[in-house]
Amino acid sequence: MIASQPRLVIVRQNVLKNNDVLARELRERFRQADVSVVSLVSSPGSGKTAFLERTLSALRSQYRVAAVVGDLATHNDAVRLARSQALVKQITTDTVCHLDAKMVDAALEDWDLNDLDFLFIENVGNLVCPSSYDLGEGLRVVLLSVTEGEDKPLKYPTIFNTADLAVITKIDLAQAVEFDLATANHSIQAVRPGMPVIQVSAKTGEGMDRWLEELYSFRRNR
Amino acid sequence: MIASQPRLVIVRQNVLKNNDVLARELRERFRQADVSVVSLVSSPGSGKTAFLERTLSALRSQYRVAAVVGDLATHNDAVRLARSQALVKQITTDTVCHLDAKMVDAALEDWDLNDLDFLFIENVGNLVCPSSYDLGEGLRVVLLSVTEGEDKPLKYPTIFNTADLAVITKIDLAQAVEFDLATANHSIQAVRPGMPVIQVSAKTGEGMDRWLEELYSFRRNR
Repeated sequence: MIASQPRLVIVRQNVLKNNDVLARELRERFRQADVSVVSLVSSPGSGKTAFLERTLSALRSQYRVAAVVGDLATHNDAVRLARSQALVKQITTDTVCHLDAKMVDAALEDWDLNDLDFLFIENVGNLVCPSSYDLGEGLRVVLLSVTEGEDKPLKYPTIFNTADLAVITKIDLAQAVEFDLATANHSIQAVRPGMPVIQVSAKTGEGMDRWLEELYSFRRNR
Repeated sequence: MIASQPRLVIVRQNVLKNNDVLARELRERFRQADVSVVSLVSSPGSGKTAFLERTLSALRSQYRVAAVVGDLATHNDAVRLARSQALVKQITTDTVCHLDAKMVDAALEDWDLNDLDFLFIENVGNLVCPSSYDLGEGLRVVLLSVTEGEDKPLKYPTIFNTADLAVITKIDLAQAVEFDLATANHSIQAVRPGMPVIQVSAKTGEGMDRWLEELYSFRRNR
């Protein structure tokens, strides 16, 4: 195992470098088409899909929105998101624990980016693998549910470090699970000082206005 | 990226093969020392540590128990588990999203396995990476919390396929999150027909007796 490791690292760096080149191309295409691209990362079960479904539904009256969603297997999330009437495409990654720029590029193949205002990319549920892969997004959002424990940012610092905005989800359950917001905030600020933090519940709608304000502001400042 | 991929796969296979050799050695050492080894895998925040803390506390009066716990960063989990008075060691994996046999081997270095009846290995919170790495355990337990959604087994079939027992955690929250046990069971049985499923709450203690029975039976049948 020791003998193999250095070689593995070199090959991984090549893979990442190729990804960065393609991500840069994607970012330039998004800019030219004037589409605002937001990616969502989190552990499995933190409520990405419910949050995104509510977001797509809220934006649809004023903006042209689409979503690409990654999972190892199943099309369940695409089926759920399609209820919002937005354009949705599922990427299944089989055994790969993250999306990469190539997968996103392939998923966008038959869409005209000029027809979109917002594109959301929901990554595979994982707090480790997605952190190194640039997808060309303009805003990377990390989600953390109140049921996961307040120290997740300290345990998974890299993914919080690469994100632009943290969203605490399932805030309607905060009392039932004795969630301590101050501790969670402290953990987030410890690994990513200054990162804005929003609390939402996709179930009750609490905090969604604040989140939509962030999206409008992101689009205005493009 | 295309050019690099086949080489990456070959190197990964070597890494896995080396891990299997070491895991086999570990399993033989565990057998000779008559220690029952149980590993826990799940997504981050499914309640592995609370569940394990309660398990260690319950077993301690009758058995000699120890735990090895993996995280990317922090010693928080080891500190929590140490409250049970059991022997505990933390492995921090930095950027690696799973434990491997070598890490477990190194963590056990200054413990005498003959002094133990049960050894628990809490893997890094991840539903993808740990599935391919044999740690020499005799029983692999996959945890799924009621807050994560009933279709997780369908989305992460490999990890459920490599497990011997499924534990549904945080069952005290089932009603608050409208958890559908029949659907969850159906998902588990679809990817791993016949796998036993236990429901527990580490908070209220519900279901812990049934879980302890499984552990006693696992030790009796060694």
